Amino acid sequence: MLWYIIGSVAALLTMFGFAPQIIKIFRTKSVGDLSLPMLVQFSAGIFLWIMYGIHLQDYIIIVSNLVTFITLIMAIGLYLVYNDKNTKN
Amino acid sequence: MLWYIIGSVAALLTMFGFAPQIIKIFRTKSVGDLSLPMLVQFSAGIFLWIMYGIHLQDYIIIVSNLVTFITLIMAIGLYLVYNDKNTKN
Repeated sequence: MLWYIIGSVAALLTMFGFAPQIIKIFRTKSVGDLSLPMLVQFSAGIFLWIMYGIHLQDYIIIVSNLVTFITLIMAIGLYLVYNDKNTKN
Repeated sequence: MLWYIIGSVAALLTMFGFAPQIIKIFRTKSVGDLSLPMLVQFSAGIFLWIMYGIHLQDYIIIVSNLVTFITLIMAIGLYLVYNDKNTKN
């Protein structure tokens, strides 16, 4: 039960780990200091974690990484939109 | 063997996931668009993943999250240094 809670809180914190960054992009409409290679590298890695989680049949790993993957796709989309609008960067 | 490779590549990509961001901070010395709450939230979540990995006795989860945790501490340190130097943000 303790480990269920620890795993769940870990999952909640990291699955929504990019949420504060996405909120900041929405607010400032600025992504000049963000690293696109970071977002792409995480997306590839998180995708493979989903595969690994399916292999382990650990639904905490599967669901948490799936949510992270979706937020990463959102972040990459916002990056491309606002990086394009601010060609001064 | 296939799953060992998939887990290892997933671990390598995400354990060094913040490396491109750290390199960009070193190069631009600018962190204005980065979200500090993102870095802090990930640090807390990754710490709990390390605990959960110890519980599962899965050394891939333990080692990969430990490296991510170290890079997050580095990123937070760099954020504080360069955010302080650029008070215009």
